[in-house]
Amino acid sequence: MEKLVRLSMSIEKSLFQKLERMVERRGYENRSEFIRDTVREMIVDEQWKKNEVVIGTVMLVYDHNRRELSEKLTDLQHHQHDMILAATHVHLDQNLCAEMIMVRGKAGDITRLADSLRQQRGVLHAKLITSSTGKEL
Amino acid sequence: MEKLVRLSMSIEKSLFQKLERMVERRGYENRSEFIRDTVREMIVDEQWKKNEVVIGTVMLVYDHNRRELSEKLTDLQHHQHDMILAATHVHLDQNLCAEMIMVRGKAGDITRLADSLRQQRGVLHAKLITSSTGKEL
Amino acid sequence: MEKLVRLSMSIEKSLFQKLERMVERRGYENRSEFIRDTVREMIVDEQWKKNEVVIGTVMLVYDHNRRELSEKLTDLQHHQHDMILAATHVHLDQNLCAEMIMVRGKAGDITRLADSLRQQRGVLHAKLITSSTGKEL
Amino acid sequence: MEKLVRLSMSIEKSLFQKLERMVERRGYENRSEFIRDTVREMIVDEQWKKNEVVIGTVMLVYDHNRRELSEKLTDLQHHQHDMILAATHVHLDQNLCAEMIMVRGKAGDITRLADSLRQQRGVLHAKLITSSTGKEL
Repeated sequence: MEKLVRLSMSIEKSLFQKLERMVERRGYENRSEFIRDTVREMIVDEQWKKNEVVIGTVMLVYDHNRRELSEKLTDLQHHQHDMILAATHVHLDQNLCAEMIMVRGKAGDITRLADSLRQQRGVLHAKLITSSTGKEL
Repeated sequence: MEKLVRLSMSIEKSLFQKLERMVERRGYENRSEFIRDTVREMIVDEQWKKNEVVIGTVMLVYDHNRRELSEKLTDLQHHQHDMILAATHVHLDQNLCAEMIMVRGKAGDITRLADSLRQQRGVLHAKLITSSTGKEL
Repeated sequence: MEKLVRLSMSIEKSLFQKLERMVERRGYENRSEFIRDTVREMIVDEQWKKNEVVIGTVMLVYDHNRRELSEKLTDLQHHQHDMILAATHVHLDQNLCAEMIMVRGKAGDITRLADSLRQQRGVLHAKLITSSTGKEL
Repeated sequence: MEKLVRLSMSIEKSLFQKLERMVERRGYENRSEFIRDTVREMIVDEQWKKNEVVIGTVMLVYDHNRRELSEKLTDLQHHQHDMILAATHVHLDQNLCAEMIMVRGKAGDITRLADSLRQQRGVLHAKLITSSTGKEL
């Protein structure tokens, strides 16, 4: 467990009260945890902007009846197999599938992989979560 | 396979040329697919705003050494087991884990679940992908 | 000048160091000011979500040669004259104009006004800044 | 007035119906105008990412009682006078002011100017609209 440091700052009273209400409303145990989360969120954003090695999850919704789409999606993933950590498939109904694919790599490479998955015909929706390896958090 | 309709529209010549370059640069086979994707993206945004039944994926990065965190996260998921479609865990290193959890439910309920996962101490990052059941796409 | 309160919190050492670097890189004099700005930004977001009385600025870029567009835009603004605080016009070149319009009102009403300005033919771009009356900041 | 070209595309029937409803709900006269606006929005985003010469509006809310703040803000603007097209000031109440400042320049320079205005003590909120000179739209 990492060493904690004590940090103090001054803030206008009315702003302080609004901060306290926000912490409570968002369900945080305490203010420290809320501010830590806010800082971590900013760090992750910077990691993606600076093209560092990060982790992301691509989520796909697609029609598996579309000819050769599954093979195409699998091919694309195998081509980048060293980036892909895990892929989980869910059968939504008779026709539709959802897939979530966790990826580790440079931010730019992950974005390109997500784009190439999105562009396949039959893919109805593709979206990328930008997260982090956690080492810098 | 669903019936396609033909749709035509007028557009300024210079804007048309920029659209064509954008379609190419983003790697789309053709303009139709690009515009369809854009429309689908807007539909998904509206589904989330209107609190419809949608699909999302929550991604977590956390420190599994944190006392009782894993149990807490599992508890939270079991409490909402009817919403959770699948959860996949990846061991990032000695200490850190990443998890992706696919969820189906009302947009507001999914957002609340993601918030309650994020607030646990030891969770370093939590983010939600907003997608769709695909039925309306 | 409002009374300041002293607030202290604990934070992991490595996260603290990253926070300090972020404060410096973004050009803030000190950490307190950076955190205050972050909290204020969240308050403004909540004000817009809750449809409170806020302030926004609509920016338009349009082609003034488009028949009757200027009259149409002026009409739309007069129709909402009680919301509009100020409007400034800039002649960008022979054909193009830019306008910035500061508006006070309920968040939803401001959004609708921005939408109705955007929809006019000849308006090439319209965008809304979401800000605040400052009373709650 | 620029020459229009005719563009046609194929789209699934159910998606087409949803597009039509979206066009109507957002108050557009017709589908062409809606799609043109969507394309223009993407072009503006790319212009900012590529650091092209663009137009933006910075909106500030601040407390004019704060010692020397007005002078500081004016100084900062004069220092960049060749970028600033127009600045309009509104007195919100006894203490608070709002200002909207239209700026033309490289995307990065505009962002830096907005950041330096935001960092001044007494500035409660600062936000930047990213728009365009309209030439590419």
